[in-house]
Parts: sequence; C-alpha cells; structure tokens
Amino acid sequence: MNPEIISSRDNAWVKKLRALAQDGAAYRKLGQVWLEGDHLCRALLARGLQPQAVVLAQSAQVQVAQWGLDPSVRRVVLADGLMAQISSLESPAAMGFVHALPAATPLEPQLPSVVLDRLQDPGNVGSILRSAAAMGFKQVLALKGTAALWSPKVLRAGMGAHFALQLREGLSEADLEALRVPLLATSPHRGEFLHRAELPWPCAWLLGHEGQGVSDALLARAAMTLRIVQPGGEESLNAAAAAAVCLHASAARIA
Amino acid sequence: MNPEIISSRDNAWVKKLRALAQDGAAYRKLGQVWLEGDHLCRALLARGLQPQAVVLAQSAQVQVAQWGLDPSVRRVVLADGLMAQISSLESPAAMGFVHALPAATPLEPQLPSVVLDRLQDPGNVGSILRSAAAMGFKQVLALKGTAALWSPKVLRAGMGAHFALQLREGLSEADLEALRVPLLATSPHRGEFLHRAELPWPCAWLLGHEGQGVSDALLARAAMTLRIVQPGGEESLNAAAAAAVCLHASAARIA
Repeated sequence: MNPEIISSRDNAWVKKLRALAQDGAAYRKLGQVWLEGDHLCRALLARGLQPQAVVLAQSAQVQVAQWGLDPSVRRVVLADGLMAQISSLESPAAMGFVHALPAATPLEPQLPSVVLDRLQDPGNVGSILRSAAAMGFKQVLALKGTAALWSPKVLRAGMGAHFALQLREGLSEADLEALRVPLLATSPHRGEFLHRAELPWPCAWLLGHEGQGVSDALLARAAMTLRIVQPGGEESLNAAAAAAVCLHASAARIA
Repeated sequence: MNPEIISSRDNAWVKKLRALAQDGAAYRKLGQVWLEGDHLCRALLARGLQPQAVVLAQSAQVQVAQWGLDPSVRRVVLADGLMAQISSLESPAAMGFVHALPAATPLEPQLPSVVLDRLQDPGNVGSILRSAAAMGFKQVLALKGTAALWSPKVLRAGMGAHFALQLREGLSEADLEALRVPLLATSPHRGEFLHRAELPWPCAWLLGHEGQGVSDALLARAAMTLRIVQPGGEESLNAAAAAAVCLHASAARIA
C-alpha cells in the first residue's frame, strides 16, 4: 500500500491521533492505542502482533520496509512538524503505530498476578509492568483510580511489557475476590523480612498508592505481610523500586 | 524576622529563584539548591539542617511556625501566581526552601557506595538515591554525563535521600580508582545469579546508562558480575528497578 501523506493539522485522522497521544484516557473511547517510538513498535511486532497503521514523520530516517509489516497495514506520512504537535513526549519520536486496544479478558483466578491499588505515577506503573513481565508474572489487575494502563506515558515506560501480560483495569476490590492465589503485601513495620520468607507461588502482589500504600481493606485480606529490610533506617522506597524488590523475591523462589 | 513580600516577577531574587527551579544545573553556578514542597523541606529539617530562606505563596495554608526554623532564616512571601511561574513541577507546591549546596566532600575509599555511570532520567536517579539511603549505602558517585544530582527533579524524586548521603558528581572513571571496595556490576547474560551470590560488604554497585548500561571500561574493573533472574524471559528492567533489586540484595546480606 502506498503511503498517504497528510499535511493538515485539521485532518480528522490527525485529530484522532492527537487525542490518542495527548489524552491519556482517550483509548477507552476510541478503542485504539498510540505506540510512539521504534522501540515500542518493534516490541509489538516481536510478539507476533500487527498494528492497524504505521505513522512516519516525512523526514524520518526510519526504514520500516524490513520490519515484516503486513501489507494491509495502513501507512501514513505526516508533514514535518505535525508529528511533534501530536506527541505528548518531551522528545517526540519520528514514528509510531496505531494499534487496536486488546479486548479485556476475564480475570484469571490462578495466574501469578500483580494488583495495582491506585498507583498514580505513569512512570511507576510502566516500570512495574516491566518488572512483572521479567519476573514471570502473567496478569496485572488495576483497581479504579490507578493511572490509565494504555496511556502513552505508561506505554512508553512499559517498553513493550504490555504485550507480554494480561491487563485488566477499572476493577473494584470486590472483583479481586475471584482470585485463587494468596495475596502478598508489604508493610514498613510488621511481618517477616522478605529476604528470609518462604513465598508461595503462584501469588498476587498488592502494590499500593505512592503516598497512602495499599488500602486497609485490601491489606486485611493479605495472606502474608512482608517487610523489606532497610539497614539505612527509615528512608522510604519509591513505589516501583519496592515493587521490583518484591517481584524479584518471588522470581528467586521459582528460579 | 518579619517576612518580605515580593510581587514583581522582575525582582532580582525571584529571578535567581526561577533559575534554580527551572534550570537543572543552575545550582552549580549559584551554589544554592531549591527544595520545593513541604515533604522535601521537612526532610531537610529532620536531618538537623537549616535552609537559607523559606519561600511561601501568599495564599499558602502551610504553617511553618512550628517547624523549628532558626530565627535567622530569611522568610519570603511571594504574591499569588508568582510561585506557579517559578516552579518547574507539573503540580507546583505552595512553599519551598532555598538551601546552600553542600560542599563537595572528598571521595571516601571505604564507604559502601553507588556509582552512577551516565544515568539520564532524573526520576530514575532520585529513585536510586532513595534506595541507596534505605539500603545502607553512604556515598553516591556520579560520573560526568549523569543527570545533575541537585536539580529540582532529582531532588523531588529523591524525597530527602540527598540529605542522608555523601554525594559527589562530575567524576571521571579514573577518579574511581581511589575506591578500596569491590565493584559489582550486573549483566543480562553472564555471571552468578544475584539471589544466590555471596556479596561482599562494603561494596560499590556500578549502575549504568538506561540504554547502554555500564561502560565496557568500567565493567572490566568489576570484581563480580551478577545476573538478575528473569523467569519471564528476556524482558528488560527499568534502571531504577534493577538498582533496587541489587541494593536490596546487598542489604539482605548485612541485615
């Protein structure tokens, strides 16, 4: 398919693209996500998935001819300058994909899982998805109030981990009752030290809001509460850093 | 001391404040740092340190009277709107401190240390400082090309960890030859698995650039190369997440 060249910022398709790139929750209405930058796009293809459209800046040096894109994928070239107007990133990329938002799958009760309880920061959420995928977790369950999982910022920070996981969002605490794996939580002041504990597998880690942590109601349902050793004193850890330590501890048990 | 009220954006002191808040490297010339938000300011006081000035937005509801500020600390009130113009944060705070940049201390050869080799992202660097402080490391050594440690974004992400650590920046690889503790590095493909290794203490962890990792020259000087187990496959970890896993592994050995 020959590429279409679009030069007007008022083009209807460009307007949709701008919404997907700049409004972190637009994908929920539009059913599509915006994957910006060649790393993220290649991660999609590496999973055997195909985008709906590939978007290139006119002066982009990216050669997608060798990427194995299906001939039916729409190809769009944007006039120089238009790409930068669309991006919400500090350093706009020269290309991106438009991809169909994966259909929501039912919660799987037995999968090793990560539960996100109102995490706010897109960088933290993306980092946690990467850690989850690397550490052998298969499912991420985001409660209402968590940063939108398919927003461009979370996608960017996730570096392709989205395509390796089953993601559910907008869940309530009641929805988690369907889980049939033990819930694990961290506490600064009580519980066994994580590095000495015998952790169950599969399990579901509860990861909480950057300031408030996991809700009391959820904490009460945890089968185990673990403590991260902090010989440096009462300093606190970044939420994604603490998550990495916990998920790695589980990975070390099954390795 | 009664507070001064400043309402002009052209006031010389306000201009300096704007430089400190918006130019991540301005502190190197001006010898002062900008601590924005009450969490960071309280973290300074909790370490027994006093700022040079406290800055409040006119309509701020923050009551600093009970904070234990020295009477000699300059108090400045900024007309509403001026504070938001100064901040470089997405959500500008209603108060901040101006603090003297701590004098650079000599590299201490025996301290448990973290070496930052050209890490770019201020959020990652701040998260690593928090992990380092919590995990019992005392010194952070940043090589040339690493994000400016005392920039507002790194300070914000560090949540006060800066005040618990000895920080050196602008170092060369040759400067590290003074270190008398073993250097540890991670590699995705070789070395012993981190969770099974007997790690030395004290040590210095080498943490590298988000995309390129630690330089080959530095890697060659590592006493040990460790691998982080990743049962989920070849997924990569965020740099600050990987750092947290490594520093925690050291903390678990000494706990």
